[in-house]
Amino acid sequence: MDRILISHGNGGKDTQYILQKYIFSKLPENLKKTENGVGLDYPDDGAVIGEIIISTDSHTIDPYFFPGGSIGKLAVSGTINDVVMMGGRPIAILDSIVVAEGFPLDDLDKITSDMISILKEHNISLIGGDFKVIPSNSMKGIVINTVGIGLSKNPIIDRVREGDSIIVTGPIGVHGAVMAALQYGIDTKLKSDVKPLIKLLDVFEKFQGDIHAARDATRGGLAATLNEWAQLSGKMINVYEKDIPIPDEVKSITDVTGLDPLVLANEGVAVLSVSSDKAEQIVEELKKLGFEPSIIGKVIEPKNKDNKGLVIITTEVGGAKILEMPSGDIVPRIC
Amino acid sequence: MDRILISHGNGGKDTQYILQKYIFSKLPENLKKTENGVGLDYPDDGAVIGEIIISTDSHTIDPYFFPGGSIGKLAVSGTINDVVMMGGRPIAILDSIVVAEGFPLDDLDKITSDMISILKEHNISLIGGDFKVIPSNSMKGIVINTVGIGLSKNPIIDRVREGDSIIVTGPIGVHGAVMAALQYGIDTKLKSDVKPLIKLLDVFEKFQGDIHAARDATRGGLAATLNEWAQLSGKMINVYEKDIPIPDEVKSITDVTGLDPLVLANEGVAVLSVSSDKAEQIVEELKKLGFEPSIIGKVIEPKNKDNKGLVIITTEVGGAKILEMPSGDIVPRIC
Repeated sequence: MDRILISHGNGGKDTQYILQKYIFSKLPENLKKTENGVGLDYPDDGAVIGEIIISTDSHTIDPYFFPGGSIGKLAVSGTINDVVMMGGRPIAILDSIVVAEGFPLDDLDKITSDMISILKEHNISLIGGDFKVIPSNSMKGIVINTVGIGLSKNPIIDRVREGDSIIVTGPIGVHGAVMAALQYGIDTKLKSDVKPLIKLLDVFEKFQGDIHAARDATRGGLAATLNEWAQLSGKMINVYEKDIPIPDEVKSITDVTGLDPLVLANEGVAVLSVSSDKAEQIVEELKKLGFEPSIIGKVIEPKNKDNKGLVIITTEVGGAKILEMPSGDIVPRIC
Repeated sequence: MDRILISHGNGGKDTQYILQKYIFSKLPENLKKTENGVGLDYPDDGAVIGEIIISTDSHTIDPYFFPGGSIGKLAVSGTINDVVMMGGRPIAILDSIVVAEGFPLDDLDKITSDMISILKEHNISLIGGDFKVIPSNSMKGIVINTVGIGLSKNPIIDRVREGDSIIVTGPIGVHGAVMAALQYGIDTKLKSDVKPLIKLLDVFEKFQGDIHAARDATRGGLAATLNEWAQLSGKMINVYEKDIPIPDEVKSITDVTGLDPLVLANEGVAVLSVSSDKAEQIVEELKKLGFEPSIIGKVIEPKNKDNKGLVIITTEVGGAKILEMPSGDIVPRIC
């Protein structure tokens, strides 16, 4: 009998396969979205119904406290960021906490405090939720589902265009590297980059019409985001290894473990596809807001049809190779 | 160290305690709802933002297939019903599936088919979601979170009024009794009552203004719903044991197990608090739609202040006793 594998949750090829086979293929086209909206017809960070943006994610992480954050901070930031990446201003969240019997109440206390302190900081309401307990013989730890609700008159539906510049808003691979260090027992001073990216809305407003796609590169990392964009658009995306900002602390962890920083999760970094004539201005604006942005590549119309939907990385030594959609097991487990 | 107990998930007193201590008490009042909405400031089946109704629940059940349904049917019906109980017409759902490594793909196939067949039947869209895999040493089975989105210009915010009649739309205790039979190894022909209650919207529209509260009596059963209403309103609710429709098959299971049918979950029964002068008409309308309604009690202003917020049940032998908010362990586990 065929069974679920860890790789089916990698956020890459294998997850796409499962979703396609068990969900998307069973749904008629008209039930993939609402009349005035965007939904599973066009995979993005969230769904659109009129001027409402809605996103949901189930969060699980082991350990649930880590340098720089907790599952509480992760769950709320992640959902806020999904709403923001759709161009939505987050106004409310709902949370469903599923916790194992025996879970320490002190830990639950810290986790809910982390969640609520972000909501307070950004004036976002918690308007509903659920709380369930599972027997300890069926589950360990905690799973937190969050639903984000935002408002936008001009949602950003990811559509990269020929000629676009690709920008990342900060250093790549940090959250995944922290989790790898914990799981492999590697000493590091690195802290997770998990944080809400609400400030980006200022940039999205200022450069409205020039931000053609925005996504937080979480599970599957930069590689998954770029590959999804290339697949959706049928364009080719070229990135330059030398321009991708990977901190030395991340490199020292990926060197030891053999992991690829480009598939490591980020929890506080956005990837943007923008009009190339505005790219430098957008970078300057991002810097003013405290981001550390880099232009890492561009979107092109491939001359060879076989290259449609591919992501090509030009390596530091000058060669070029395909940056694949992540597949197989996720190492480290970050979700 | 204090730890989470199974009883903290009972949907009654113990869940109220945890939510109050770890979430509600940390949230400032203005962050319990949006400006034009209803949220945690007033606990109900879902939240309201303008004309949008939003509800979320995390569903877990062991076994995940049971007579009359599956966790898939349960998750989608439950969320649809929460939207309907707020007076909302469901237009879309989002789903997050968290599944353990090793979960049989054939079972996943049946579960997603159950979900999608309900959506097709009622023309509801699936507009987004999430899919995660947890290692088999951390979890068994499957957890499905569903988010329901509905539209209503006149949401039903539960406010029972003095003189209201209490109606149940069908036989009580069936889903919980089926789960008890499975868990205790009792032979029964009973099938879960799990189903969407969308047809009720016709009644809510026809008797708009006379339906003062509506809730599906799931976890914690009829006892939890009536106690929440009594607590929220400060009224007293009187119900008559002889008028509460409990099927013989349910009784034969509760007789053997010692369970109280009034705390058993229902997954396809609504409880309504309605203007008493319209109660008979509403019952007739419900019958036309195929429901098996009963008027089981009334809302009164207690003469004695100590009785505010109490639910009193008049037993078949003529005595009266307090019907308590469920507390302690849920038996059987239904969520």
